[in-house]
Order: sequence, then C-alpha cells, then structure tokens
Amino acid sequence: MRWEEAAAAIRPLDAGAMAAARELQARLTKPAGSLGHLEDLAVRLAGLARRCPPPVPRRPAVAIFAGDHGVHAQGVTPWPQEVTGQMVANFLAGGAVVNAFARQIGADVVVVDVGVAAPMDSRADPSASAPQASPEVLWSRRVRSGTADLSREAAMTREEAMAAVEAGVDVAAALVAAGYDCLITGDMGIANTTPAAALVAAFTGADPGAVTGRGTGIDDAMLARKTGVVAAALALHRPDPADPIGVLAAVGGLEHAALAGFILGGAAAGIPVILDGVIADSAALVAAALAPDAVGALVAGHRSVEPGAAVALAHLGLIPLIDLGLRLGEGTGALLAVPVVCGAVRVLHEVATFDSAGIADKGTG
Amino acid sequence: MRWEEAAAAIRPLDAGAMAAARELQARLTKPAGSLGHLEDLAVRLAGLARRCPPPVPRRPAVAIFAGDHGVHAQGVTPWPQEVTGQMVANFLAGGAVVNAFARQIGADVVVVDVGVAAPMDSRADPSASAPQASPEVLWSRRVRSGTADLSREAAMTREEAMAAVEAGVDVAAALVAAGYDCLITGDMGIANTTPAAALVAAFTGADPGAVTGRGTGIDDAMLARKTGVVAAALALHRPDPADPIGVLAAVGGLEHAALAGFILGGAAAGIPVILDGVIADSAALVAAALAPDAVGALVAGHRSVEPGAAVALAHLGLIPLIDLGLRLGEGTGALLAVPVVCGAVRVLHEVATFDSAGIADKGTG
Repeated sequence: MRWEEAAAAIRPLDAGAMAAARELQARLTKPAGSLGHLEDLAVRLAGLARRCPPPVPRRPAVAIFAGDHGVHAQGVTPWPQEVTGQMVANFLAGGAVVNAFARQIGADVVVVDVGVAAPMDSRADPSASAPQASPEVLWSRRVRSGTADLSREAAMTREEAMAAVEAGVDVAAALVAAGYDCLITGDMGIANTTPAAALVAAFTGADPGAVTGRGTGIDDAMLARKTGVVAAALALHRPDPADPIGVLAAVGGLEHAALAGFILGGAAAGIPVILDGVIADSAALVAAALAPDAVGALVAGHRSVEPGAAVALAHLGLIPLIDLGLRLGEGTGALLAVPVVCGAVRVLHEVATFDSAGIADKGTG
Repeated sequence: MRWEEAAAAIRPLDAGAMAAARELQARLTKPAGSLGHLEDLAVRLAGLARRCPPPVPRRPAVAIFAGDHGVHAQGVTPWPQEVTGQMVANFLAGGAVVNAFARQIGADVVVVDVGVAAPMDSRADPSASAPQASPEVLWSRRVRSGTADLSREAAMTREEAMAAVEAGVDVAAALVAAGYDCLITGDMGIANTTPAAALVAAFTGADPGAVTGRGTGIDDAMLARKTGVVAAALALHRPDPADPIGVLAAVGGLEHAALAGFILGGAAAGIPVILDGVIADSAALVAAALAPDAVGALVAGHRSVEPGAAVALAHLGLIPLIDLGLRLGEGTGALLAVPVVCGAVRVLHEVATFDSAGIADKGTG
C-alpha cells in the first residue's frame, strides 16, 4: 500500500470516546488520578479505538524489521555486519531475548527482511500468506542489500525509501488482517543507531552530540567518531524535515523507513503501536512528519538509554512505560510494556464504580 | 510461626549461583549489559533460588493485608474509615484495580484481615485451609480492631505488633506450602500512609517533611497537618530503630507489621517478594531491621509517588521496576512488575549463547 493511502486513513483521536473514558475513570473505585500515567494511556486508547472502554489487546505481534547499513564502514560499532543476518537466524530459531520476552507476554514474532546484506532464506511473503503463530516467520521485502554509506552519499534513493515505508505499511495491514490487535516495533541492523541519531537530529533540531549514543556498547573514541559521522552526514545532506521521505533517503535506514510505514499502517487501522527503542522512536518522528495524527496510535514502550530516544519521545510528547536501562533493541523493551498497556485498559472494563460497589467516596462519609 | 524462626531461616544470597548467572549473561546473544537492571535482577534471583538459572515464577499470589488506624481521627485523609472494610468487600467481589491487574498477570488474590475496624465476614483461616485460586479469599488474622492513635499513644502493644508480624509470616508460609512461587505485597487501610511515613522516618532518619506525602490525594492544608502528626508521633515515642518491634508498636500499623512478617516468610522460603508502594516499602525497612538478609528476596515492583517510597527504596538499595506515577496501593504497582521479573529470568533459560547460535561476538568478526 502506498504510504499516502495509509496516512489518509489516519483519524484524530475520538474526543467523545476520550471524554467518556475520563468520566468513567472518575467513577471507578480508586482515588482520582491514582493510576498516574496509566489513566491517560487508557483515555488515549479509548480515543484510538473510538469507543469506551477500548478493547483490551489480546493478540499482540512484534515485527522485527532487519536491514544493514553502509555507514558500518565508518567504524561506528564493534560488531561485524554479518551479525545482522546471524541474529535474524537466531530470531527464527527462537533464541533471542525478543523471543523469550514474546513468549512471556504471548506475542507472535514476525521477522521482515527489508535489506539484510547477507542473503536470507525467506519462508513467506506478507502478500502471499497470512502470518502464522509460532514458530517465527521470515517475510521478505528486500529493498536493497543494505544502505549506502550515509556519511558519503545518500543512504538510498527516494524510491527505495518509499518502497521500504510501503513494506512496513503492508506488514501492519497483513498483521491486522490476520487478527493481531496490538503491533510492537522490532528492529535488527548492526550500526542502525547511527542513522537513528541522524533522523532524530534532523527532525528535532537537536545537536548530534545530544542524540548520538553508545548503541549496543562502544567506547569513548568510537562514540566520538560516531558523533562526527552523524554531524558530517547532516552537513553533507542538509535534510529538510518538511520532506520526510527525503530525510529517510539521505540519512535513514531501511528498517527505520519500514518502521515508519508500520506505524502508519497501525494508526490507519486504529490499532495501538508500541514503540521499542531509539530506532522505533526515530521512525516515529518520520511517521509523525508524514501524518501528524499517527502519534495518537503510539505508546512509548520504554525509554532506551540511547540519548536520542528521550529526545524523540519528548518531541512526540510520549511518556515511556518502562525505564530500566535497556539498550538491546529487537523489540524487547516494547514487549515488556504490553502487560502494562493491557492492565491500563482492563481497569476500564473490570473495576467497579463507587455506586455499584457501595463505597463511600471521599468527602461523602 | 514466630518471626524469629523465619528470620533464622533466611540465608544470604548464594554467591556461587550469582556468579554462574553473571557468567551465563555474558555468553548470551545480546550485547553485554544491554538488559540494564534486568541483568542484575536475574542474578539476584539466582542467588535467592541458590541455582542458575533460577525458576521462572509461574504461580504468583498477592496478599492484601487490611487494617484500620486510630490516627484517622487526626484528619490525615479525606476518606472515611469505613472505606477500608468496603474495599475489602470490593476485593472479594473482584471489583478493584488489584483484581483487574491480578487477572492480567494470572495472580491469585488473598485478603487478610489483620485489624479492620468494621466486622468482617471471613471465609477461611490460613491455618485451616490452603488458599484457593479465584474467587478471592478472605483470611482472618485480626489482632485488634484498628490501631490506637499513634499521635497520642502507642499504636499497639509489643505483643500485638508481634502477633501481626507472625500473621504475615504464616500467610507467606501457607502460600508457599500451597505452591505459590512469587509473593506480592498488597495493603488496604485508610490513613495507612501516615504510619508508613513515620516508619520510614524512624528507620532512615529522614525528616518527616521528606517522607510524608499526599497518599491517595490530599490538599496542602491536610498535608501540613499530616506531616505535623508524623513529627509529633516521632517526638512522642522516640522510636529506636534497633528495636524494630518497638518501632512498629509505637508508630506502625497492623498491615505494616503483617507485611514485615510476610517478607520474612517469603525470604525464609527463598521466594521473591515483590514490593508494592510505600506501605510495603516501610514494612521492608522493618523486615530488614529484623533480618538484614531478607533484602535479598525483595524486588521493588514500582516507585510510588509517595515520597517515603523513594527514601525507603534508596535505603534498601532497591531499584524500582515500574515508575508511572501510581499512588493507589492494594498491590497494583507490584502486579504490573511481575511480567518484567519473569522476563528477566526467562532470559537465563531461553536465550541462545553466541557459541550455540553461531554468532560472531564483537571484536571477533
């Protein structure tokens, strides 16, 4: 699906359903406001579902978009590039942390190859087959075998960026059509925090030094080089945030582009999209630039320690649910947040009102 | 069971199991340290279980200890005292937030009356029957019908404080005997953040103004009065933290005392005890004073906005897993943390090693 179609289908949150959720919260047997951010979250999800109470998510799926990065050649990570493909195999074998966390919360795992450098043995295509439950599935939507080095040339062409975005839209649509009601962002791509930092800087105006981090773990010298690479890329391309596809093409990554489309697809379906770390957060900035109302579908699953994550979430006005010093990616932080999201919504379905429970509200006793 | 027996059964965390867990973490297919606080948590739980990997909690139970407080007469809350008993009825009917969150994570709910002012219709006694799964069960271990006003006299006698502690020990032992493998602290008691603040001040040396908060929601004038009540109680009783039972008797509450015993009982069994908010955190200070190694069994489920919670957790050296502005109590914040705890442990069971998955570790590629 073209991203413009998805963007056009995204509606603002429904004010009536949100008002009904706020009114219901006030009557439930708990002190007003005592569930903190979870009350606002439930209200937003009512607006997204356009009814109160909104449905409790029952069938979550995490889509792990995998791609490689030409900027790897600049020495921005100690990990060899082939780890991207090796980790895809690990996901498919069920052996990564994302698999363990998915099992913990009952989510299915789909891996989407949007541009891994090594050849992948894909098993299915989202246009050809509905996703299955476990075991994990690999879908192929390869746009190119890794991006070009964004510090020397555009990471990809506009057409490639759009193709990756549309792959993400298609994956979201296929998952929703298969009955999944909660979409979780996942990613894999050695060096992918470098384009994420560039995207966050491009869309928020933040300094490269404020949004470039240690990724999966780099030393001071490598961090300085990585920050310099991000700054050089921004100086070379001068990306214009008013042209989000152009920004993606210049300094983005294939999985970042696909995640932007995935967000648009989820938002178009009125389904919550739970963001993982800085890769997803940077993609959310792209999605919000393409369709501002897409933010209404977003739940910040956690706050990565990668500094660009907090900058992006603040720009989007999202409060992370989990903040435990995670910096793994894959979708791990977002998966941990799913029971919290479900709990917030369950309250609107299952908790008695003061009237129905015969409980004295404060000031009345 | 006498609390001294439980305390004597508590062992320090097993250093060998912790070392094995650290060594295993380093070989798993994730960057070293990338799971942040969850790695330390899994290591501690290995030390508690005395084996690596430790068991993934499968049968969690939340015990909600309910009691009333004579200090209610000082106007420290806008809620009428009868709400304690009304909320107990709500828990038993499954209509409170704690019930909704327990269903979300598959926990059973036990309510323990340790001193509700209103008469309760108890259904079972922990010494007489094993806990059942749903529907929720009320156990009676009434020590007295609410405490005395701690701002004017001791909240209870030493014997009553010990009886409440021992009720908590017994509840933990009964739950463990019934097969529960993860204990979650819950509490209900209108005005119970006032004794919690006094306990935190007594054990940490913090100023009453730094640990007294708005509880379920009070205005500035009531907060000033409440802080004054806490300060007056401390000045009247001069509680000695070297005499934890004496501190409980002077400025504690029945549910605080029972929770201290519940912690000792869980720790004695080598079972994790997940702390909810400031009531549990203040009880944990008591438990740690009675048996310092009990801290090894504790997981800080969340950080309540009640200021004493953060002071107590810092004193105990515990990092909260959830921090979402909750101030409801009942066990709600701790329940949200259970899937996070399970996820942290699952990693040690289910994630492939670099060797087994054939993945290049950094620096080797």
